[in-house]
Amino acid sequence: MSTAADHRTFEKIYAEVQQFYARHIQLMDEGRAEEAALTFTEDASLLSPPKIAEPIRGRLKLGAGLRKVADELDAEGVRYRRCHTMMSVEPRPDGQVFVRAYVQVIRTRRGGESTLHAMCVCEDLLAREDGELKVHRRVVTRDDSR
Amino acid sequence: MSTAADHRTFEKIYAEVQQFYARHIQLMDEGRAEEAALTFTEDASLLSPPKIAEPIRGRLKLGAGLRKVADELDAEGVRYRRCHTMMSVEPRPDGQVFVRAYVQVIRTRRGGESTLHAMCVCEDLLAREDGELKVHRRVVTRDDSR
Amino acid sequence: MSTAADHRTFEKIYAEVQQFYARHIQLMDEGRAEEAALTFTEDASLLSPPKIAEPIRGRLKLGAGLRKVADELDAEGVRYRRCHTMMSVEPRPDGQVFVRAYVQVIRTRRGGESTLHAMCVCEDLLAREDGELKVHRRVVTRDDSR
Repeated sequence: MSTAADHRTFEKIYAEVQQFYARHIQLMDEGRAEEAALTFTEDASLLSPPKIAEPIRGRLKLGAGLRKVADELDAEGVRYRRCHTMMSVEPRPDGQVFVRAYVQVIRTRRGGESTLHAMCVCEDLLAREDGELKVHRRVVTRDDSR
Repeated sequence: MSTAADHRTFEKIYAEVQQFYARHIQLMDEGRAEEAALTFTEDASLLSPPKIAEPIRGRLKLGAGLRKVADELDAEGVRYRRCHTMMSVEPRPDGQVFVRAYVQVIRTRRGGESTLHAMCVCEDLLAREDGELKVHRRVVTRDDSR
Repeated sequence: MSTAADHRTFEKIYAEVQQFYARHIQLMDEGRAEEAALTFTEDASLLSPPKIAEPIRGRLKLGAGLRKVADELDAEGVRYRRCHTMMSVEPRPDGQVFVRAYVQVIRTRRGGESTLHAMCVCEDLLAREDGELKVHRRVVTRDDSR
């Protein structure tokens, strides 16, 4: 696997990473919790203080959390969209990829206004499962609670 | 054409699509209606409810609409900028490309504030005319009117 | 150098440019003034009216300005993040690259809200120093002061 990684050009990895995030975030934001869970590795961890102050560990727990949040937001008529920009992509020799991005979180209530809910930085370690990039470890920090 | 498409790598198409949108949206937002019209195929359609609830069909009508809106905004001293992110790019066997992106629409009045006007999703089918990517079919949906 | 540039594919340059901006802007926004200064060429110039109405010239002066602003923002507990989107990338025969992008500037006060501070357009001429892309000339315009 690391051999394969060695032969990927930066531009190939860069495009693959961008495409991964587009699909991953759209699934997350649109309440497709089960599909979104599959974009995390089996042993993934997620930390996002203050809401998620202790890491959530494992795809099973992550998937359950995503389902719960999706149902709550749906009941409230609220949609969040995470707009990632300024994505730095650092491939590692073992085939994992470290990605650091800005995230504008936009919140819209059905029939209401769209507002900037939070400005965050998302630091991910991506790993490959069966050749596909997935989130292995995520740490999100909010600018308002630095 | 489909043969040529078969030989393009994903990273090549990805970069080409990003570059297309940068130019296309800058033309649209900056009131260069005639040039913007040329970034749609001859038989393009555009649907963007609630404002455009019935599809506008054809480059000629699109161009006229773009001209009208550009002149109105210019008279009002208002500029919109569409910031596309999380762009998923799906090349099809026939050479067309399906693109789904988040769009933050930012509105600025000259001498006034810049505000988030709307959060949208833009679903485009791009097609090639004389080798160049253009918008063939666009459907925009707003999060506030889901 | 121009020979080398001739052999770079567009997708390679595109990914390199994106990666450059991610690192460059993160350094700028996070107050790492000395490292940020090194992402400008020795003879770089920066114009950003109304705040910077006369061009700042040279890496030394730019670095000093970045340091000053970083210290002031740190004392105020304010962070700006510049979110570049719709980046058009135009490689030139001499190896320089012209880049035009939208910039949403997001402002967050520690413990406060994140707000859209300004909507700008950033026009850069990038040049290579020792093979690395750097900002050679930057002109930023704000939509509210067109």
